[in-house]
Amino acid sequence: MSRNLTLLTDYYQLNMMYSYYMNNKMDQEVVFDLFFRKTPCKSGYAIAAGLEQAIEYIQELSFTDEDIEYLKQSSQYNQGFLDQLRSFSFTGEIYAVPEGSVVFPQEPLVRVKAKVFEAQLIETALLNIINHQTLIATKASRIVEAAEQDTVMEFGLRRAQGPDAGLYGSRAAFIGGVHATSNVLAGREFQIPIRGTHSHSFVQSYPTETEAFEAFARTFLTNCILLVDTYDTLASGVPNAIRVFRKMKEELGEAFVNYGIRLDSGDLAYLSKAARTLLDEAGFPEAIIVASSDLDEYLIRDLKGQGAKINSWGVGTNLITSRDCPALGGVYKLVAEEEQGVLKPKIKVSENPEKITTPDFKKVVRFYDRKQHKALVDLIMLEHEEIPTEEFVAFDPVNTWKKKKIKNYSTKELLLPIFIEGKLVYESPSLKEIQEYAKQEKHTFSAEILRLTNPHTYHVDLSPALWELKNTLLAEARHSEFEE
Amino acid sequence: MSRNLTLLTDYYQLNMMYSYYMNNKMDQEVVFDLFFRKTPCKSGYAIAAGLEQAIEYIQELSFTDEDIEYLKQSSQYNQGFLDQLRSFSFTGEIYAVPEGSVVFPQEPLVRVKAKVFEAQLIETALLNIINHQTLIATKASRIVEAAEQDTVMEFGLRRAQGPDAGLYGSRAAFIGGVHATSNVLAGREFQIPIRGTHSHSFVQSYPTETEAFEAFARTFLTNCILLVDTYDTLASGVPNAIRVFRKMKEELGEAFVNYGIRLDSGDLAYLSKAARTLLDEAGFPEAIIVASSDLDEYLIRDLKGQGAKINSWGVGTNLITSRDCPALGGVYKLVAEEEQGVLKPKIKVSENPEKITTPDFKKVVRFYDRKQHKALVDLIMLEHEEIPTEEFVAFDPVNTWKKKKIKNYSTKELLLPIFIEGKLVYESPSLKEIQEYAKQEKHTFSAEILRLTNPHTYHVDLSPALWELKNTLLAEARHSEFEE
Repeated sequence: MSRNLTLLTDYYQLNMMYSYYMNNKMDQEVVFDLFFRKTPCKSGYAIAAGLEQAIEYIQELSFTDEDIEYLKQSSQYNQGFLDQLRSFSFTGEIYAVPEGSVVFPQEPLVRVKAKVFEAQLIETALLNIINHQTLIATKASRIVEAAEQDTVMEFGLRRAQGPDAGLYGSRAAFIGGVHATSNVLAGREFQIPIRGTHSHSFVQSYPTETEAFEAFARTFLTNCILLVDTYDTLASGVPNAIRVFRKMKEELGEAFVNYGIRLDSGDLAYLSKAARTLLDEAGFPEAIIVASSDLDEYLIRDLKGQGAKINSWGVGTNLITSRDCPALGGVYKLVAEEEQGVLKPKIKVSENPEKITTPDFKKVVRFYDRKQHKALVDLIMLEHEEIPTEEFVAFDPVNTWKKKKIKNYSTKELLLPIFIEGKLVYESPSLKEIQEYAKQEKHTFSAEILRLTNPHTYHVDLSPALWELKNTLLAEARHSEFEE
Repeated sequence: MSRNLTLLTDYYQLNMMYSYYMNNKMDQEVVFDLFFRKTPCKSGYAIAAGLEQAIEYIQELSFTDEDIEYLKQSSQYNQGFLDQLRSFSFTGEIYAVPEGSVVFPQEPLVRVKAKVFEAQLIETALLNIINHQTLIATKASRIVEAAEQDTVMEFGLRRAQGPDAGLYGSRAAFIGGVHATSNVLAGREFQIPIRGTHSHSFVQSYPTETEAFEAFARTFLTNCILLVDTYDTLASGVPNAIRVFRKMKEELGEAFVNYGIRLDSGDLAYLSKAARTLLDEAGFPEAIIVASSDLDEYLIRDLKGQGAKINSWGVGTNLITSRDCPALGGVYKLVAEEEQGVLKPKIKVSENPEKITTPDFKKVVRFYDRKQHKALVDLIMLEHEEIPTEEFVAFDPVNTWKKKKIKNYSTKELLLPIFIEGKLVYESPSLKEIQEYAKQEKHTFSAEILRLTNPHTYHVDLSPALWELKNTLLAEARHSEFEE
């Protein structure tokens, strides 16, 4: 389903490119970091996602005749610039964290080193893709954590913000650990298992609930999940479902498997317990109970805490839109720029300390406890720095008195090469592999980091050299800005 | 950019279709209403949007060989059913409210009368498209109301939930009254005016702020909006911008037009007033001030209340995701079904009175005061009912003692024919016309309905015949459901 999204950019990118072109700056080498400042939903972590679509986007980059014609008519651009666009392709370098990685604020998820002409164009789409999928993967991960060992299904397509939000949201949700989706297109595109039963209208379209249930059961024989709340869940739906299960069991015997009921309204704790009792008493302890109705991680946690007898959770709107935090605020900031053939670090100052950028061409290193293989700290370092091999003192970049000696560790670099000189050098894993990787990644973090509410803050520190560079540049910037 | 989205549906639709096929019910005629129960953002109204994309979707409906192959491998479907899919096309009837219409809870926005096999398949995508665009058009309308006569620009692409959310969100925002977008693709696809200046990185990439400003100004000569908060807005940014404006004015004279500054951080009330003073004192009263920084309708209203000197508002995340209410909960409910060749009304009961559907094949009529041409009430009626021509008593369908005599009115039917026997009979207006229509529509409602907070509730009543039918069916349903 790859599409040419070359014009999926902010107009100011093109305007800056034009100005760079007019001022002979278009080939200047720059480095941009894509990172976020806050995790979504006050989560202790985020799950990186969207790289595969970002790669496709970069590969498809090319201005069509129609694009050029449109720009000619709607802008002041001259022919020389339009010719540059016509021959545009990405020739730079991109490093990124693999999808499924557990990531934290301030860490570059994508690092672009390219001619400013190219680095600027791709900002908006990269942010759009990575922000969206990272957001939904993170939300999904939280929901899956709350559901513990239960099955979680993504059911949100009808409430997603357009077709792509449904399609790529489903992909991201799968990375975050969801087991299946209702979205058939996502199933075809990404080999995500698809699930679906029937709606209230199906029940309504038969003279009686029992007739509807029986028609549905006879169609599928197995995988028969009956929606029991069209009329009255406990007085009508569950008894009628049991009646049909009995019939099917009589006819099919052991071949009648994977059946159960779905609750879609009412109090799910009360109804699921009552339904469980009815099903068990009728001799159907293996009948599963699916629930769907405005679920999110908090409600699932609470329902489980109240002993709800639910085996499988269908989560819609709150997952596919990440309703309580529907945007990840990823940004793309200039951190270095070529001057006389050398990359010079750049900093963006701000009255708001959180918004001051971390300068220069950098890498991110994760340190693991060698015995338990739990993550200890992430260190953002200058790219050319050597990773300490024996021990070092990590310190909080703001409250520098907070120190911790780190030893007996193994390390991993988070950023991997994706494009080198414009050539793709990375092969995306399968989506199933990415999901598994995210699961493994989460295992390397303690429960305190993964907690749904008020999680412990994982430490992302700067190397001493980087910390010093940042503070030096900051002092220089504050000193020089009034001097022009 | 039309795409084949035939598989953009919930798996349960296909499963129900399969069951209908297996039980010889696939050709049964049904009527579904698409409507919402609550306006988004506690708004007093919503702006309908998305019909054009819904039409494209219906027209492109067709299962490809790849789709069929995928379904064959991932489902229990038999060959006969797959052959039915292979020859699928929409042959039914669709009525809908035109885009830009002001609409209210419980009113059908789309009414589908078709074979159940067809009506079921299209549910999910119709909801996805209409929910999304109606949500964003409504949010945009609220923001535009708050901004009064000022320009509002949609700047949210980087935070949108995927490419489509950016593209169609921009379209919907334009319908809601936004004047321009930063999204170049939306500009090309929908002829929305595009706007954009430069980012902080552009300023950083020059040795001094003044050099950056000058380079930018010389590139564009006019339409020169300078971002003044890279270092220090009032101490550096605005004075440097003034320096450059002076130079340009000296060189270009009267030809130097459409210039100004953009504020993107800090307190926008304080900074805009201070900047206005500096600009005015320097002899640039016509310089415009653009603001962008986490804006929404409430902040814009408050800033204007505090006398902020802002001419143009760039609204990003809060608009493109409708952050405080990121989903419109539109639903698609069975309201009638053919039995022995006659359409019979259907009702869906629920413990929750809000969730009880309004049965049967219906139309929606808006009554206007003939003198002021203000909307008085909307009446949902049975399709075959005659619209009262002289006077009638409207009554609240829940609190029936709330009555109002309506006379001296003109009327309008909200639902228009879109597809008849599968043929498109409607021509979508241009997006500009739709935007204008929404504006006219809003003029027919009083300020009390349009108010941002605690708006007056507009009356959507049922005709006496429909009210009686609903209550009769409800009583029957409650009586019969325990009788199986």
